[in-house]
Amino acid sequence: MSVKIAVLGHGVVGSGVCELFYKNKKSIEKRAGEEMDIKYILDLRDFPDSPYKEKFTKNFDDILNDDEVTSVAECMGGVEPAFTFVKSCLEKGKSVSTSNKELVAEKGDILLRTAKEHNCNFFFEASVGGAIPIIRPLHKCLAANDIDKVAGILNGTTNFILTKMYNDNMPFDEALALAQSLGYAEKDPTADVEGHDACRKICIISSLVFGRHVYPKSVYTKGISDIQLCDVEAADVLGCSVKLIASVRRLENGKILPTVMPTLVPYENIMSGVSDVFNAVLVYGDGIDQAMFYGRGAGKLPTASAVLGDVIETVKRTSTESAQTWEPSSDDSFIASHEEYVSRWYFRVPDGKQPSDAGSYRHDDGVSFITDKPFSFAQAMDMAKEMNAFAFMPVMD
Amino acid sequence: MSVKIAVLGHGVVGSGVCELFYKNKKSIEKRAGEEMDIKYILDLRDFPDSPYKEKFTKNFDDILNDDEVTSVAECMGGVEPAFTFVKSCLEKGKSVSTSNKELVAEKGDILLRTAKEHNCNFFFEASVGGAIPIIRPLHKCLAANDIDKVAGILNGTTNFILTKMYNDNMPFDEALALAQSLGYAEKDPTADVEGHDACRKICIISSLVFGRHVYPKSVYTKGISDIQLCDVEAADVLGCSVKLIASVRRLENGKILPTVMPTLVPYENIMSGVSDVFNAVLVYGDGIDQAMFYGRGAGKLPTASAVLGDVIETVKRTSTESAQTWEPSSDDSFIASHEEYVSRWYFRVPDGKQPSDAGSYRHDDGVSFITDKPFSFAQAMDMAKEMNAFAFMPVMD
Repeated sequence: MSVKIAVLGHGVVGSGVCELFYKNKKSIEKRAGEEMDIKYILDLRDFPDSPYKEKFTKNFDDILNDDEVTSVAECMGGVEPAFTFVKSCLEKGKSVSTSNKELVAEKGDILLRTAKEHNCNFFFEASVGGAIPIIRPLHKCLAANDIDKVAGILNGTTNFILTKMYNDNMPFDEALALAQSLGYAEKDPTADVEGHDACRKICIISSLVFGRHVYPKSVYTKGISDIQLCDVEAADVLGCSVKLIASVRRLENGKILPTVMPTLVPYENIMSGVSDVFNAVLVYGDGIDQAMFYGRGAGKLPTASAVLGDVIETVKRTSTESAQTWEPSSDDSFIASHEEYVSRWYFRVPDGKQPSDAGSYRHDDGVSFITDKPFSFAQAMDMAKEMNAFAFMPVMD
Repeated sequence: MSVKIAVLGHGVVGSGVCELFYKNKKSIEKRAGEEMDIKYILDLRDFPDSPYKEKFTKNFDDILNDDEVTSVAECMGGVEPAFTFVKSCLEKGKSVSTSNKELVAEKGDILLRTAKEHNCNFFFEASVGGAIPIIRPLHKCLAANDIDKVAGILNGTTNFILTKMYNDNMPFDEALALAQSLGYAEKDPTADVEGHDACRKICIISSLVFGRHVYPKSVYTKGISDIQLCDVEAADVLGCSVKLIASVRRLENGKILPTVMPTLVPYENIMSGVSDVFNAVLVYGDGIDQAMFYGRGAGKLPTASAVLGDVIETVKRTSTESAQTWEPSSDDSFIASHEEYVSRWYFRVPDGKQPSDAGSYRHDDGVSFITDKPFSFAQAMDMAKEMNAFAFMPVMD
């Protein structure tokens, strides 16, 4: 008797799950220790030419009411109807593996609790960093660490745009258009460009690392649409690349501070070399010092690989993996204001406004410099006002 | 009733395991789902000032015959007596987590089989890449992939030396002396400098990925003691850094080819930015394309973190983790000769001997260039002879 799987959604990721599963079926079964097969694919569309056409259903109840199906891969995206479907599966004791970051960021606590109550698993490795193993290493391999900071490049589209600005001197609008023509960015690029996608992912990481659900609305989020070519060039002269960094840290007062902001990354930091659509996550712990995970953060097969890795784990486990979980949060009083964010800062100011003691770079669009000392975001805002700054950004440690 | 642990060896890693365990005991227990304590520390030396002094024993039988001890951390190093001790523990059903790469590279197949026969676990995350989670991601998170190549910077000492040669123009001997004075290199640096340490680690990775035990003696291994400052400088002009790369790939004929060689890494490759004592492992799979794991490859707390991550897993599991294993190999006929290694090549030759069509860099010590096309190692050797080459090295894809 083989383990029967259902795949919800046959878009980019869902079809990748089917493709990769049948390509590597033998070795996947060997690793799971069980024979496995996909019994259903849920999609409202018709796929008359699909090699899996006999597996399609438009009726979710076919899957829910089939006791043979014990493991479900959710690749639909969006909160609804994914939430209702996933919750129903978990309530029937079917484990679910998802690539859906919106779902996990908005409803992770509820779904983790539901899984626990029904002795099954809700896994979401694919929801952060695509192919990059990060969720499982965070709670398993690094389990002996007190982790106090995580910082990541978690959105491939914006990293591609910033790389084009940097490598090819391409203005933002042109780089965005190129990303769209290559299929890296949506027609409406807001979720990527304004940082909402990265925000959802840092919410998931924050929840997992610090143990309480962090909602996207509690996270200060700034995208890259204001980044000027002159800032990218000036950053280079000052020894840094500009990246959209999603990070979370624990402050001395015990609160946590998740943010998404364009940030200067010094060339000594390995993160500065993460280019194109690649993602990376840097983890700081008291045992490991720092460790980085790097890879393709999106795409059909990379994301499918992460979903299937989770599906294999659901097959191997007979009970809930208790370590990979977090508590609901009734308020966000454990989250610090972004004004408490402390770092060195990059400023671009009108010529003559720069402090005399800082190494600075004069160019056509003003003068750029990095502060020697760290300041809080609140202080940096005051300084920016005082200097009539055109732009300011934090600098990564 | 708490889970009782024994730590074999109280050197750098073993004492780190005790330190990190008691520092993070609460969160470790939460993740393991059980109360835990260290009951014994085995060491022949006396530690009268240790905070754990009542736990020390010089008699291994105290540990072996205490049925309360169910999880053992082996941090002694060397094949014997570690092998005898670890095998005895496994035969009694005590799971073992080790940081000992010599032990795993020489005896991994036997110990994995022993663990399976006695329904316990032999874990070795700490034996490769120190703090970097690589063993578990390879067999768990990337389980849906067909992995066909792994390449890593697996020795921190040589990477430190190469970084000093590159950044500070420091000759090899001087950089080695500095590494020794900083405690990064042993008095007898042979195991690091000649690549034996990296060789053991690529053996472990090769065995895990391709499923059959690969012995160090079957692996072509060349260290960095021949690397000249002029080659590091020329590589930079040609857009590459020089790294000691341990890699394994599967050839089209089904054989695998593990090697350890100084290699030019183009700056576009994220591995080129891995500096100082840091390690990194790049994994190529059909689903993920590529993923890299980066962090501290050695040191007290980083290695202890990896050992304890495994110890936590031994506590959570009631049966053998079957996926993390490999078969014994009676011969090495499945391993290809290094002469079949195909890549582009870096040559340094006397002026006048360089091919006219290649971009080349003329300097005081000859002419350096990289071939446009890939050649086998055997062909590269012939070319080197023909051109009276001073040096030649592969170039990473």
